[in-house]
Amino acid sequence: MDDAGFMHLAFEQAQKSYDEGGLPIGAVMVEDGQVVAAGHNRRVQDGDPVAHGEMDCIRRAGRRPRYDRVTLYTTLSPCMMCAGTIVQFGIGRVVVGEDRNFAGNAEFLRSRGIEVAVLDSAECVELMARFIAEHPRLWDEDIAGKDG
Amino acid sequence: MDDAGFMHLAFEQAQKSYDEGGLPIGAVMVEDGQVVAAGHNRRVQDGDPVAHGEMDCIRRAGRRPRYDRVTLYTTLSPCMMCAGTIVQFGIGRVVVGEDRNFAGNAEFLRSRGIEVAVLDSAECVELMARFIAEHPRLWDEDIAGKDG
Repeated sequence: MDDAGFMHLAFEQAQKSYDEGGLPIGAVMVEDGQVVAAGHNRRVQDGDPVAHGEMDCIRRAGRRPRYDRVTLYTTLSPCMMCAGTIVQFGIGRVVVGEDRNFAGNAEFLRSRGIEVAVLDSAECVELMARFIAEHPRLWDEDIAGKDG
Repeated sequence: MDDAGFMHLAFEQAQKSYDEGGLPIGAVMVEDGQVVAAGHNRRVQDGDPVAHGEMDCIRRAGRRPRYDRVTLYTTLSPCMMCAGTIVQFGIGRVVVGEDRNFAGNAEFLRSRGIEVAVLDSAECVELMARFIAEHPRLWDEDIAGKDG
C-alpha cells in the first residue's frame, strides 16, 4: 500500500470519530509496510484531553523500545503536543493528510531531523473543515486556541 | 502551600509509582492554590507509552478550555512530549523537581514564554537515580534513548 492508501486508513479513523460525535482526526502507525496500530481523537468520547489522534494511535501500538523505522500517518498536521511526542519517541517519518485547517508543526519536525510529507488530501480537508464549522468551540478546546 | 509543598505531593505520586514497579515520576496540577489533579507515569502499570507523569496528570484534570492560570509541578524535567503538551495547552508555569537525571526541556519552554522554576529537590533526585540504577532498560524505553 502507498502513502495515499495508508492515509485513507487514517481518514477512516477520522470518519469513525466524526460519526461518534468526536473530533475527526485519525492516525495510523506503519512499520515495514504493515499497520501496527490505528487511532483517533478521543477528547469527546473518553473526556481525555491528551487523546489526539496521533497520541491514541501511539498508545494503541503499546510499549516499544524504538520508533525509528515507523511512519506515522495523521489526517491533520500535528499540534505541538503530538510533534513533541514524535520527536521524543524518534519516529522516523510523518505523513500529514492536510495542513489547511491547522498549520501544525511540520517545520519543527524537520528541524529535528524527521522526514515529513504533506499530501493535501481533499477528503481530510473537507471532513475537518465541516467539523470546525459545525463545532467551533470543541475545535478551539482541542487546540487550546493555539493554531500551530 | 508553597512550591516545595506542592512538589512534595508530586514526589508522593512518584513514590507511589515506584512502589507499584513503575517509573517514579509524578506530577500535580494546581490552579489558584488548589490541587486540580495528580498523576504519575503509567508505562509499566497500564502498558501506556504516552502516560508520562505530566500527561497522566493532565488527563486526570479532564477537559478544560484553557490552562493559562495553571501551574504544573513535575518531579523530573519534562521530555519533549510533555514540553510540547505544556506549550500546546498554554500552561502558564512549570515547576521542575530536578534536572540532574534528565536534562529535559526547560529552555524550550522558556523560549515559548512559559515560566519555569527548577527546585533541585534532593528526594526527587534520589528516587529517580535509584530507579535508573535498578531498571536501566525501562528508563531507556521511557525516553526512547533521548536524554532531553
